[in-house]
Amino acid sequence: MKPKVLIVMGSDSDFPVMEEAGKVLEGFGIPYTLTVASAHKSPERTRQLATEAEDNGIEVIIAGAGMSAHLAGVLASHTLLPVIGVPIDSSCLHGLDALLSTVQMPAGVPVATMAIGRAGAKNAAILSAQIISKKDSRVAQRLKEYKKKMSEEVEVKAKALKKTLPR
Amino acid sequence: MKPKVLIVMGSDSDFPVMEEAGKVLEGFGIPYTLTVASAHKSPERTRQLATEAEDNGIEVIIAGAGMSAHLAGVLASHTLLPVIGVPIDSSCLHGLDALLSTVQMPAGVPVATMAIGRAGAKNAAILSAQIISKKDSRVAQRLKEYKKKMSEEVEVKAKALKKTLPR
Amino acid sequence: MKPKVLIVMGSDSDFPVMEEAGKVLEGFGIPYTLTVASAHKSPERTRQLATEAEDNGIEVIIAGAGMSAHLAGVLASHTLLPVIGVPIDSSCLHGLDALLSTVQMPAGVPVATMAIGRAGAKNAAILSAQIISKKDSRVAQRLKEYKKKMSEEVEVKAKALKKTLPR
Amino acid sequence: MKPKVLIVMGSDSDFPVMEEAGKVLEGFGIPYTLTVASAHKSPERTRQLATEAEDNGIEVIIAGAGMSAHLAGVLASHTLLPVIGVPIDSSCLHGLDALLSTVQMPAGVPVATMAIGRAGAKNAAILSAQIISKKDSRVAQRLKEYKKKMSEEVEVKAKALKKTLPR
Amino acid sequence: MKPKVLIVMGSDSDFPVMEEAGKVLEGFGIPYTLTVASAHKSPERTRQLATEAEDNGIEVIIAGAGMSAHLAGVLASHTLLPVIGVPIDSSCLHGLDALLSTVQMPAGVPVATMAIGRAGAKNAAILSAQIISKKDSRVAQRLKEYKKKMSEEVEVKAKALKKTLPR
Amino acid sequence: MKPKVLIVMGSDSDFPVMEEAGKVLEGFGIPYTLTVASAHKSPERTRQLATEAEDNGIEVIIAGAGMSAHLAGVLASHTLLPVIGVPIDSSCLHGLDALLSTVQMPAGVPVATMAIGRAGAKNAAILSAQIISKKDSRVAQRLKEYKKKMSEEVEVKAKALKKTLPR
Amino acid sequence: MKPKVLIVMGSDSDFPVMEEAGKVLEGFGIPYTLTVASAHKSPERTRQLATEAEDNGIEVIIAGAGMSAHLAGVLASHTLLPVIGVPIDSSCLHGLDALLSTVQMPAGVPVATMAIGRAGAKNAAILSAQIISKKDSRVAQRLKEYKKKMSEEVEVKAKALKKTLPR
Amino acid sequence: MKPKVLIVMGSDSDFPVMEEAGKVLEGFGIPYTLTVASAHKSPERTRQLATEAEDNGIEVIIAGAGMSAHLAGVLASHTLLPVIGVPIDSSCLHGLDALLSTVQMPAGVPVATMAIGRAGAKNAAILSAQIISKKDSRVAQRLKEYKKKMSEEVEVKAKALKKTLPR
Repeated sequence: MKPKVLIVMGSDSDFPVMEEAGKVLEGFGIPYTLTVASAHKSPERTRQLATEAEDNGIEVIIAGAGMSAHLAGVLASHTLLPVIGVPIDSSCLHGLDALLSTVQMPAGVPVATMAIGRAGAKNAAILSAQIISKKDSRVAQRLKEYKKKMSEEVEVKAKALKKTLPR
Repeated sequence: MKPKVLIVMGSDSDFPVMEEAGKVLEGFGIPYTLTVASAHKSPERTRQLATEAEDNGIEVIIAGAGMSAHLAGVLASHTLLPVIGVPIDSSCLHGLDALLSTVQMPAGVPVATMAIGRAGAKNAAILSAQIISKKDSRVAQRLKEYKKKMSEEVEVKAKALKKTLPR
Repeated sequence: MKPKVLIVMGSDSDFPVMEEAGKVLEGFGIPYTLTVASAHKSPERTRQLATEAEDNGIEVIIAGAGMSAHLAGVLASHTLLPVIGVPIDSSCLHGLDALLSTVQMPAGVPVATMAIGRAGAKNAAILSAQIISKKDSRVAQRLKEYKKKMSEEVEVKAKALKKTLPR
Repeated sequence: MKPKVLIVMGSDSDFPVMEEAGKVLEGFGIPYTLTVASAHKSPERTRQLATEAEDNGIEVIIAGAGMSAHLAGVLASHTLLPVIGVPIDSSCLHGLDALLSTVQMPAGVPVATMAIGRAGAKNAAILSAQIISKKDSRVAQRLKEYKKKMSEEVEVKAKALKKTLPR
Repeated sequence: MKPKVLIVMGSDSDFPVMEEAGKVLEGFGIPYTLTVASAHKSPERTRQLATEAEDNGIEVIIAGAGMSAHLAGVLASHTLLPVIGVPIDSSCLHGLDALLSTVQMPAGVPVATMAIGRAGAKNAAILSAQIISKKDSRVAQRLKEYKKKMSEEVEVKAKALKKTLPR
Repeated sequence: MKPKVLIVMGSDSDFPVMEEAGKVLEGFGIPYTLTVASAHKSPERTRQLATEAEDNGIEVIIAGAGMSAHLAGVLASHTLLPVIGVPIDSSCLHGLDALLSTVQMPAGVPVATMAIGRAGAKNAAILSAQIISKKDSRVAQRLKEYKKKMSEEVEVKAKALKKTLPR
Repeated sequence: MKPKVLIVMGSDSDFPVMEEAGKVLEGFGIPYTLTVASAHKSPERTRQLATEAEDNGIEVIIAGAGMSAHLAGVLASHTLLPVIGVPIDSSCLHGLDALLSTVQMPAGVPVATMAIGRAGAKNAAILSAQIISKKDSRVAQRLKEYKKKMSEEVEVKAKALKKTLPR
Repeated sequence: MKPKVLIVMGSDSDFPVMEEAGKVLEGFGIPYTLTVASAHKSPERTRQLATEAEDNGIEVIIAGAGMSAHLAGVLASHTLLPVIGVPIDSSCLHGLDALLSTVQMPAGVPVATMAIGRAGAKNAAILSAQIISKKDSRVAQRLKEYKKKMSEEVEVKAKALKKTLPR
């Protein structure tokens, strides 16, 4: 099946974080592709990925990067697809640099910024599913089940916790 | 026309920021509605807005709030529509509190976070248009024109600046 | 005995921090219950806990959460019981996100915010005891003993330290 | 009527912030007294205020201070009454110094910390009312009315906003 | 004379800051050109400026931008000329976002980052002069005079201050 | 009378802050001198001031500087006199840069760091008086009076405030 | 010999940091005493230590504390001896809370603040020696030797490093 | 061959970071020397290194330091050579102190600031090569190869990643 989501990461060292996005997309049955492109080290590659994405059938781009994380912004400058940014904690500033670099975009070029790290990568996949579900009722159905299950899991955990308590 | 975007703000004092989102949506010809609901002061109203939005034909929710900005997260907890969060600078911490409260969502409930303030409000509208354009080719066309014009305006400004320079 | 304090945490991974509150309450002889509810993953459960608490005899609610910690604020939006918030260090931002999300509440809906982490969890229990002691003289007496002992322990530590010093 | 809440501020320049607490208490019909005491400039006075408060019928202490805001912590070290801290923005660090100085209390001596500035001062009064309402059903009734009115005001504002909108 | 320094700013609103760089370059007799290009709004223009700079005789590029300031990094990704970044204070985060976005570049693509704002713009020009002076002894001579004069001006100010003092 | 305290500031624009130190020293009857020296613009002058200070009868050095405030540290590297640093808020980072540059000295070369701005300048003078009072009983006596008066002024303010209150 | 420096720490867990101050004082031949006193847990003990220090022959007080580090400020409120504050990194905020709590003292009550942690503890001892050396020429002589040795050690390290380099 | 780049570090504990700069310079065939000098512990040595550098054939100075990192600024105050600053993460503030101390230089004395830590050390070497390449075509050629290889490596990594993916 042709991928609908393009996951790009600034370095292969970001893979342990960004694969979380892939796993969640698989759960929703959304085909995706995942690659490496650095806004600074390989600007042409990055530009090409962004400009060709729509023609390749991509509907959403997810970009994960650390430090002065320009990747999501650079991709967004070259496409009109929704771009979701995942700041990654890969410097001693603990992702604050990546967060501000990703979120503080000037008016005209939005990047949908998620939380720093794995939580953000997972949420990038869920937001992708929410966008894709506009035209894909199966994804919409799976999102409903996901939300219901998430709520139920909290109750399961609450019950499990109760059992371990002294009272 | 039935609104497709619901803009919610935590307080009417956020209006000067959030109306920017409305203006941009108008430019794209996307019908929207705009209201006030506080996650903390009027939790029932907030919940109702979120749970009824999809049935009312809303496709995207934009939420702007300051301080410990829970509005976007609370709305997202009650709906599967994409929720876009705009942190607002309304405390002495200059929006850093609102940014972290909005963006650091736990895995499972994404909020697409924009820059703090007006730039963020405008970008929330553009991201809404990008999402809506999946099913609306007129919005897609207007987005292309918007992006082209934005790029051209930079060149106009560059030329205007050149004229004022001594050399 | 019916619980007087309700301890809620956003995730079962917060238990090692929040159980400190429970231990301190036990020391004061204050019955409590402890459960999991996520403001974002299980909003209905969270709302129900808050709205039913007072009728169930709860006098104080303690809420511990990390990241964009909305739990305490959401609980406070649904009850008039005093809500004590414990920010938890569960992201790479080291609890600064949870602290600002918890403490920067808008006028109208207070959350009594404690220090980040275990110290905060313990203090949440002590503050609960201070509030409950208004109507319970045994708790008031135990608080007096606690404060006296705390002061004496400092002197014991000072003496122990003196012995280990070279001079 | 004998005051039930003691409002202390570190400097008379904090009055414009802390009088907000007084106004809200008046609205709840809770008698209070308001004074100045600096933890650093007048330590004896501060100690005396704290140690005598309970015997004087005080049930809650509210302390507002800026910079390295030790006032709430010092008061809490001398009393078992609940102490509510209001960080004040009175240095170029915009209240971040006062917030961290107030909230990061060590285990054993809680300070119930509010938001920085006026919102915090108002909320300190509401939390006081929540605590006092345990033994005073009239205050409990007024709190219910306050919460209901707060929620209604949001709807009024939403309607007013709707009228000013172009659509 | 052909310009040796290319000053690029992300928006014409950055002109009051970046013209300081131009003024200092004039003082050193270094020809320059100044233009507007946004990494996000006009990516092609930005790329073109960077890739053609060296062939046009440019020896140093100075880039000033605010918010998630990607301009210097994007220029550096397309050229081997030294790129000097000037973070600009144009959001409510007071330039901290621009500073971290500019300075935290990944290994492989340096940006020589200056202080936020006017001091940084002036220093960008001086660093340009230091680099250009390698091959231009007149600039080297003017730098020596500048440094000497800067030191002398401190003594003049010290003397002027002494006169106004009471003692 | 020969000056006992040397006040150095990095720029004459720091004078409105640093003159507060001078005023307080005058109140204690401690002779001082005040001058300008920039660690970066006039390093030789700065070095000379530090190395000659002790021979000129100086007992304490007070250094005020903003931005990457190296002045106090550079002076301390050239003398064994106590050096007191006053961070000054002269950049868009509101003195946080100056505070960290001044206080985070490596082991071996202490700088006694005060609060940012005027409060810090005043306290630098008081600390100077505390140090000088070791050998000067008149200064010791004035310090006692100062502390007593400071405490009394708080009570005067408390009384004045009481009169203006409605109750 | 009677101690001239009083080292106080807020908790015995601060000992590994604060013993560095003791070691440096021993190197200078300055007698000292070291104890535990918490501004919050044992306020009376803290007050007594401060008020009696001068009569006991103490010339300088060094106070180390973490979190909302009030210890140095509280000691300074009760004495006219110079008080040196050492912020300790004992919370998840990495000492930023302790630094701001210690350094941002209001005008009138200075605390000579050192770097966070061990470097700060060592420097507190050196500053003590600088103050004590005003009346003790042997300490003055040892300070000179210390400074000379510190400079020589840098050259030794530079030579050692040179040998290990490939070239 | 005579060294063209002088690498100075504030302490030999900075060697594991700063040797990265040396390795990159070796790759470009640029001779360098590396030594230790502390702005605070050995100010004379630091001054001498800076003032003699140009006469010794040095073309660029790289300075790495942590905490209140004054080294680069102090070197820049004594020379007109380009000075590149590398902030080092050697305190509990994770390099934020070193970053602000290095980058926030006043107008007149630029320091070309790099990212905190190893990435910054590597980039300092590349920027040095960019500056030196003005007069050395072999270095210019190697920089071109370096940039090409860097871009190619991203594609290699992208391919390697693709193989490990499930799809």
